[in-house]
Amino acid sequence: MITVGLKKVTIIAEAVLEARLLNEIRALGATGFTVGEVRGEGSRGVRASDWEGDNVKVETLVGAGTADRILAHVAAAYFEHYAVIAWVTDVQVVRGDKYLNPSDTEPR
Amino acid sequence: MITVGLKKVTIIAEAVLEARLLNEIRALGATGFTVGEVRGEGSRGVRASDWEGDNVKVETLVGAGTADRILAHVAAAYFEHYAVIAWVTDVQVVRGDKYLNPSDTEPR
Amino acid sequence: MITVGLKKVTIIAEAVLEARLLNEIRALGATGFTVGEVRGEGSRGVRASDWEGDNVKVETLVGAGTADRILAHVAAAYFEHYAVIAWVTDVQVVRGDKYLNPSDTEPR
Repeated sequence: MITVGLKKVTIIAEAVLEARLLNEIRALGATGFTVGEVRGEGSRGVRASDWEGDNVKVETLVGAGTADRILAHVAAAYFEHYAVIAWVTDVQVVRGDKYLNPSDTEPR
Repeated sequence: MITVGLKKVTIIAEAVLEARLLNEIRALGATGFTVGEVRGEGSRGVRASDWEGDNVKVETLVGAGTADRILAHVAAAYFEHYAVIAWVTDVQVVRGDKYLNPSDTEPR
Repeated sequence: MITVGLKKVTIIAEAVLEARLLNEIRALGATGFTVGEVRGEGSRGVRASDWEGDNVKVETLVGAGTADRILAHVAAAYFEHYAVIAWVTDVQVVRGDKYLNPSDTEPR
């Protein structure tokens, strides 16, 4: 089975941010994504406010370079004022070369 | 805590494929799965058509041998004509030996 | 992009267990979580009964020490009498140091 090592970027955000966030990750090089509904609760750490309520869970499979750009953007654009969480998981994707774009580093 | 290294196979597919897909992964050795609803959008890469709409996200914990068989089947049966995405993540499962079947290679 | 290596603990459980489970993982050191709805089917392995129906999927990002405590608790409290599945995935979390608590081992 031919698989390619990619990065799965997961972003949990308030539902109201969905459209804006999807436009931004498309612009940063993601070629597709899925969105699911989750309920969440958490402490934001830096700020006193807690978050709780309806959220979207956005997942996108991308190369390492695109993953870095998405995470850097999310941190810079949202972390100060919104309850957003973002993480990366290493995954092996069937025929995953289709998800790479020219800016991505070599698949591993 | 005793955990066993297994493969989590995730498949995103059009909702209409759910019943067929679940029958097939059972037949290939998966002993259980979960199904969630996601919305998706993407480019299929090989073909000109894009996909967008309601999808199911199927997840199953299996041994490495079963994971390979599921991925090979999904690629052969669906990739040409359907918008299906499949990937594998390494996970550590509590009492995960129950998810292995005799055809699986040694857990890692 | 500054990320911290954390553990994502995922627990699939009957929906009726949600409130109890969330209280317990908070008490064990988790600072936040998301909950989504999934349908599931599976064999419990040790016991003859199968499970099938509506489940919750709880995810929490924690340090290695907290992950171990949550998994040990879930196994001891639920595995004999309930259809509960729990696993851990290594993830890289943006500004993930906020999710650690003093009992966690050094982030990796």
